[in-house]
Amino acid sequence: MSDKQGKASKGTLFYAQSGGVTAVINASACGVIETCRKRGVRVLAGRNGILGALREELIDVSKEDRAAIAALRHTPGGAFGSCRFKLKSIEADRARYERLIDVCRAHDIRYFLYNGGNDSADTSLKISQISAELGYDLKVIGVPKTVDNDLPVTDTCPGFGSVAKYTAVSIAEASLDVESMSESSTKVFVMEVMGRHAGWIAAAAGLASQGKDAPPHVILFPEVPFEQEAFLARVKAVVAKVGYCSVIVSEGVKTLDGKFLTDSGVVDAFGHTQLGGGAAPIIAGLVKEKLGFKIHWAVPDYLQRSARHIASKVDLDQAYAVGQAAVEYALAGKNAVMPVIKRVSTKPFKWKIEAAPITKIANIEKKLPANFISKDGFHITAAARNYFEPLIRGEAYPPYDAKSGLPKYVRLKRVLLKKKLPKYAVADK
Amino acid sequence: MSDKQGKASKGTLFYAQSGGVTAVINASACGVIETCRKRGVRVLAGRNGILGALREELIDVSKEDRAAIAALRHTPGGAFGSCRFKLKSIEADRARYERLIDVCRAHDIRYFLYNGGNDSADTSLKISQISAELGYDLKVIGVPKTVDNDLPVTDTCPGFGSVAKYTAVSIAEASLDVESMSESSTKVFVMEVMGRHAGWIAAAAGLASQGKDAPPHVILFPEVPFEQEAFLARVKAVVAKVGYCSVIVSEGVKTLDGKFLTDSGVVDAFGHTQLGGGAAPIIAGLVKEKLGFKIHWAVPDYLQRSARHIASKVDLDQAYAVGQAAVEYALAGKNAVMPVIKRVSTKPFKWKIEAAPITKIANIEKKLPANFISKDGFHITAAARNYFEPLIRGEAYPPYDAKSGLPKYVRLKRVLLKKKLPKYAVADK
Repeated sequence: MSDKQGKASKGTLFYAQSGGVTAVINASACGVIETCRKRGVRVLAGRNGILGALREELIDVSKEDRAAIAALRHTPGGAFGSCRFKLKSIEADRARYERLIDVCRAHDIRYFLYNGGNDSADTSLKISQISAELGYDLKVIGVPKTVDNDLPVTDTCPGFGSVAKYTAVSIAEASLDVESMSESSTKVFVMEVMGRHAGWIAAAAGLASQGKDAPPHVILFPEVPFEQEAFLARVKAVVAKVGYCSVIVSEGVKTLDGKFLTDSGVVDAFGHTQLGGGAAPIIAGLVKEKLGFKIHWAVPDYLQRSARHIASKVDLDQAYAVGQAAVEYALAGKNAVMPVIKRVSTKPFKWKIEAAPITKIANIEKKLPANFISKDGFHITAAARNYFEPLIRGEAYPPYDAKSGLPKYVRLKRVLLKKKLPKYAVADK
Repeated sequence: MSDKQGKASKGTLFYAQSGGVTAVINASACGVIETCRKRGVRVLAGRNGILGALREELIDVSKEDRAAIAALRHTPGGAFGSCRFKLKSIEADRARYERLIDVCRAHDIRYFLYNGGNDSADTSLKISQISAELGYDLKVIGVPKTVDNDLPVTDTCPGFGSVAKYTAVSIAEASLDVESMSESSTKVFVMEVMGRHAGWIAAAAGLASQGKDAPPHVILFPEVPFEQEAFLARVKAVVAKVGYCSVIVSEGVKTLDGKFLTDSGVVDAFGHTQLGGGAAPIIAGLVKEKLGFKIHWAVPDYLQRSARHIASKVDLDQAYAVGQAAVEYALAGKNAVMPVIKRVSTKPFKWKIEAAPITKIANIEKKLPANFISKDGFHITAAARNYFEPLIRGEAYPPYDAKSGLPKYVRLKRVLLKKKLPKYAVADK
């Protein structure tokens, strides 16, 4: 194409956000964009993730000023929009993959950065495969992100440290509240945390338990089948000894027959699974019914993964660093890799970014190690603390508006680039 | 008594915490204790509120070092323990009131500070009455505290500004999350806030709505009877216009027949009222069932009132100031008063502390003004913003431990003073 040959273009970089957003995914976006600007690389962002690429809805990032881009570092949510949209195999979804390459070709996109979790890594891998097959030179880089912390190879996933910090701080605070009232009021407090398949966040909540008998006293992991009698006996013993009991329950807790607690009929309630929560009221209801204690329960839900106001500084730095590294890798010609976090040492805590082949990441789920859960199944071990503790270190407060008292979160202009291709509809799957 | 005449004693000051605790009730305790130390007044604190006074379980505050007392300023919960225990009328509960005076007499307590809400103001009033009747010289001062913000006379109640800030920040953050995912995922997010009888916290959440179509889009107040059709129509319209809808629901929302939503059978669920929550899942379930949108809901419960990590600086300063003033009033010989916050001006925001007679406060509930709720019943007015906005201004972060990444919340020693009186049992009521 003549306009490409006319300029000594480095090509354009495409960036998109995918899946559930986090408190710091925009910090990765900030790392990507600031690095591109330093390197003189043009950036386009997908409106609502990969859907934007398919529909040629490309946000012209050059329209956003420097201050707005810098503010992404302290703004939660997904500034360009994210999506839940999984491409199938190349065979099954070939037309869509080809469409992605068509869009890249139309806009001289030579670098494709996809910021997400497991599914996104898989998509990145397939885009690199189809581009090779079609002979279109495209460097595809996955940028890690997920509060689920379930990507392999990397020490942790950006987004996780902040939800971990929020959760540990919140249970510490609420437990002080419960403790002070426990003689004549609430004796058992149950807080639900995210983690449909693995207890990473539940385990991190255990960090709050500093010292003997410190809350949370009981953690219910998805990895440990829920046994009603053992649980109730433990709660009863804790209340007898400490005066109250703080419980963390993972949304993914299952009964012995492998059903989610929320589907188990332990309490005959409304459609919990569709409601995206409800393990805490079930557990609290059980304690009330069987032990007669006054109970309270909390379900922070999205609050936990968007709580930029109490983000972990380590998490924030890592989120920025993977964004930055992704651009450097792309410009250096790396392909089908993901910048991952390598823990160099725990004491003192040191980490660096490395490139890992996406083939080693896509579709592989990192489980909570068995040695992170205490023998009785209700708490975390010293090994777990060793791993988790550095991840919630440091505070990184957003700036606040003096008049409104609210954080100065940025809203981008999100100006769409003029389309070059004929209209394209992403059919529902 | 000889030991009294032997020293030029100023007498001892008793301080106790009552009712639901807040993120800043310990800041009031800090104001009380630091002021007493400056003035050379001995302080005893009730273990678990008024129960400690009745049982002669008096915490010897002199055993707590200066750093621990200073740390109360940034520690949530009730450091001396609080209680839900309401004394009846003097006639009905005479023995207990006399017992309180006996305990005061035994320990030369001449100043009685009770830190709480409406019930505690009532108790303070009665203690001042019984002491006068029995000819025991006791200065009784109520110290205001309640996240419910329902005390009259005072501009606001310490504790409220912080829960207001937490709530506004949380809904702003969660809404950014929902917005970024809304095209292909959750479209309606429902967050429940405290407020069994009045919509103060729900209204404060409206502060997050900065600018046109900014979330929260719909607020359900206890003051506005819930009408299902009007609500659903509003949610539908917001989703059509904005792409998603953020809803705040007060736990105290009632249907047209005056029943709590949680008791109304709108959804046949488990015992919500005892569970201390459940309006959010009901509202979310309704939206899902009737409009078919993907929904998520959150119930922060105690997290909101213990969130010292995101306390309002104005609230913290006011909490400290009422504690300080309470001591000054007591030492100046004032009796049966409460230090209240007087708003001197809104622009610029200026306030001062004044003494108000407790008779004007006890048993009077301040309602959310009708002109704070918009005509359609779903949001707040400019008058409300004018009132609320200054209350959430400023941040006042606790110090964090660099190793654990957690706030350095203090735990007091709580050494009990040796009892001087025969054993006394507080019978269950």
